[in-house]
Amino acid sequence: MKVTVFVRPKAGILDPQGEAVGGSLRTLGFAVGGARVGRLVDLEVDATTADEARFQVEQMCEQLLANPLIESFEIEIEREAAA
Amino acid sequence: MKVTVFVRPKAGILDPQGEAVGGSLRTLGFAVGGARVGRLVDLEVDATTADEARFQVEQMCEQLLANPLIESFEIEIEREAAA
Repeated sequence: MKVTVFVRPKAGILDPQGEAVGGSLRTLGFAVGGARVGRLVDLEVDATTADEARFQVEQMCEQLLANPLIESFEIEIEREAAA
Repeated sequence: MKVTVFVRPKAGILDPQGEAVGGSLRTLGFAVGGARVGRLVDLEVDATTADEARFQVEQMCEQLLANPLIESFEIEIEREAAA
């Protein structure tokens, strides 16, 4: 089952990478307000149901993929064509 | 207008970060196949229509946010509540 995890810096947490991106975009002439940079992980998970996949991926996020002190994560399970 | 850009390594491009993540997850005992790591950028764009925002963000991706040789990007415009 294909799963995508989105990891973002929590609101209020300083995001120097995002500030650099925002500054560079404005230097290039683009009209942007804030920019925040996070990461995404596309995974192929061995699971038979979406619930099982979500449960497993939550464990992965807590143990490896996200730093819960400063990052929040979101899990998206890709619907297979008429599973 | 809130826009999110998803940047992923193109298929066939080596992704050492993804391989490291996949290896670590398997070491932790998770049953995962491939893992690929990309990034996401949340932007606040000054634009009046979704089309205008998309056009601007495409320019941003080509000029700064993605490396077109090895990365593909996807743009998601967040629908404001009944704009």
